[in-house]
Amino acid sequence: MEVDYAYDRAPSSLFAAPGPAVASSGLERWQPLLPPLTAPGLGEGGTPLVELEPGIFIKDESRNPTWSHKDRLNRCTVSAALGLDAPGVVVASSGNHGASAAAFAARAGLRCVVFAAPDMPPAVDAFLNAYEAVVLPVPRDARWPLMRMVVDRMGLHPVSNLTRTHTGHSFGPEGYKTIAYELYLDLGVVPTAVCVPTGYGELLYGIWKGFTELRRLGVTERLPRMIACEPAAAAPLARAVRQGLPAAEVDVRPTDAYSIVSSVSGYRGVVAVRDSGGQVVVLDDGQLRDARRELARAGLWTELSSAAGLAAVRALGLRDEPVVCVSTSSGFKDRAVGDRSSEDVLPEWTAVQSRLHAAGIR
Amino acid sequence: MEVDYAYDRAPSSLFAAPGPAVASSGLERWQPLLPPLTAPGLGEGGTPLVELEPGIFIKDESRNPTWSHKDRLNRCTVSAALGLDAPGVVVASSGNHGASAAAFAARAGLRCVVFAAPDMPPAVDAFLNAYEAVVLPVPRDARWPLMRMVVDRMGLHPVSNLTRTHTGHSFGPEGYKTIAYELYLDLGVVPTAVCVPTGYGELLYGIWKGFTELRRLGVTERLPRMIACEPAAAAPLARAVRQGLPAAEVDVRPTDAYSIVSSVSGYRGVVAVRDSGGQVVVLDDGQLRDARRELARAGLWTELSSAAGLAAVRALGLRDEPVVCVSTSSGFKDRAVGDRSSEDVLPEWTAVQSRLHAAGIR
Repeated sequence: MEVDYAYDRAPSSLFAAPGPAVASSGLERWQPLLPPLTAPGLGEGGTPLVELEPGIFIKDESRNPTWSHKDRLNRCTVSAALGLDAPGVVVASSGNHGASAAAFAARAGLRCVVFAAPDMPPAVDAFLNAYEAVVLPVPRDARWPLMRMVVDRMGLHPVSNLTRTHTGHSFGPEGYKTIAYELYLDLGVVPTAVCVPTGYGELLYGIWKGFTELRRLGVTERLPRMIACEPAAAAPLARAVRQGLPAAEVDVRPTDAYSIVSSVSGYRGVVAVRDSGGQVVVLDDGQLRDARRELARAGLWTELSSAAGLAAVRALGLRDEPVVCVSTSSGFKDRAVGDRSSEDVLPEWTAVQSRLHAAGIR
Repeated sequence: MEVDYAYDRAPSSLFAAPGPAVASSGLERWQPLLPPLTAPGLGEGGTPLVELEPGIFIKDESRNPTWSHKDRLNRCTVSAALGLDAPGVVVASSGNHGASAAAFAARAGLRCVVFAAPDMPPAVDAFLNAYEAVVLPVPRDARWPLMRMVVDRMGLHPVSNLTRTHTGHSFGPEGYKTIAYELYLDLGVVPTAVCVPTGYGELLYGIWKGFTELRRLGVTERLPRMIACEPAAAAPLARAVRQGLPAAEVDVRPTDAYSIVSSVSGYRGVVAVRDSGGQVVVLDDGQLRDARRELARAGLWTELSSAAGLAAVRALGLRDEPVVCVSTSSGFKDRAVGDRSSEDVLPEWTAVQSRLHAAGIR
């Protein structure tokens, strides 16, 4: 069987010569509002916006070159390393940031050193090694002093934080702000609220900056409320905002949301929440799991941390349209991935049939 | 520190209202040349084309909703299930196809049953379960008869093959052909050759069909040579082409390229190779690993099977510009992912330093 069409009724404009229908261009499109993109790209950015239900949108950042939002940052920070003639980059990360830095460094012909936590998820271990980064598992508290040594003694360019209170690479939020540009173009309006999984608050701030630029350029008057979504296991930004501090430090309790758990907040997170009239929402692992399940039922498998945006929408009962949840990364990066399930092989039809009946399929 | 810009020098056209700068639309863009897209989409397609070196391009299909090319197929096949009022879909797959079917079925509110091989990679196991599919591990040879039972007795719609000689869902290549449309729009010309990882040959055929439609519509005169890239462990299409048969069957030897290993070829693969003046290239696991390493060094971490296109380019010494290699999926889906490496934690600077020295960083 072959499918046929009324070819003569296809619109003549359907193949109007090279249009911007594909996402290949990467951040270059925004070069006039970005630092010099010296490092070669991998088609980062231009991610889809999926409507979960009327008025609630998921910005799916798992559709980047290393399947997380960090690629927007690293296109900019690895460009900085090239611009400074550094022999490579160094990053403290046990996940998305490290892998993304390794990918963009490899693409640019630079070395990459990753200080990782001893308990990083197994799939992330394979991920970091794939790009031939030098992966160094070190005790968690040692990572920043050791990174400083590598920067000072070997001249590698740091693409993540080096200090106790988080102050990330200046170019990081520049990459992230392109999410705001894309949201505006995709929706045709500025959303009423943007919910962002928040560790150090760099992504939160970058997106906020992008919207403020749109207002500055006269593109739009409206600005969104920025909703910071922190894990209950460690919510330093919530504390900083509550106490009117520029940043805060808290104890860390156990959580599976490893990508957004942090004992310290950065200075920028407070700015984004305060200036936008936003708020911080604190979410326990149960709320995160519920949101992740809801996303998977809509066809989007996310890392647990990535579900924090939707978890906040549900916790706040947000209905203002349009609301955007930024989903930062894919489910492959979670801790449980790689744990073999112990399901038995089903030898024949009766065994299959009873499993299907148990699942409600008859 | 904050980055500032000459905002008044930004082009006034930069935010010209809602343009097609983002990839959110999914296959809808091509609806006039596709079956009815009844099932809701997830922003599938519109994947980036990354230039590996001058004239050699990688079409990165890991940038789809479930991170493989299969999403183009399943948008169309799950739409067929909805159109037929089936209560769900059933698929035989131990990898990308199953997960993609599960995601689109979940999005459409349909059940999904996946017959999987007992030895599927651990990360894929987590992947299939995430979308709440009913995953049934069965002996390899039993999967098609069991699938037929589920179709006949429970009315689930089959979105993969049911027969000994492969005859996939008719709508599958319809989804795949959109790759040809995108390649034409992105390159501005038809490539001289398209290298495609080949199991049953559905992707190969779908892309070929897309280009023939472009010629039929008067968009272009040129057609590409279709290069089928089969694993040496099982190359039924190579045999069919060599012996002038419509399809062939071969014994299967061990390989890590699990996504493209098949004892039987489909009828469509021969058509694509023959009509395009193309050829079949047979690649051993060493060639696939070399190509995968080359891709990772350029920042693209792929499944072993996905590197077959570039492996063929290297085996043939292709230099004709432009040549496109379709990279079907991400490295997360490989067998080795989830195997914890046994690296020791490095307690302090001297240990770190000696590891860096060993890696050539001083």
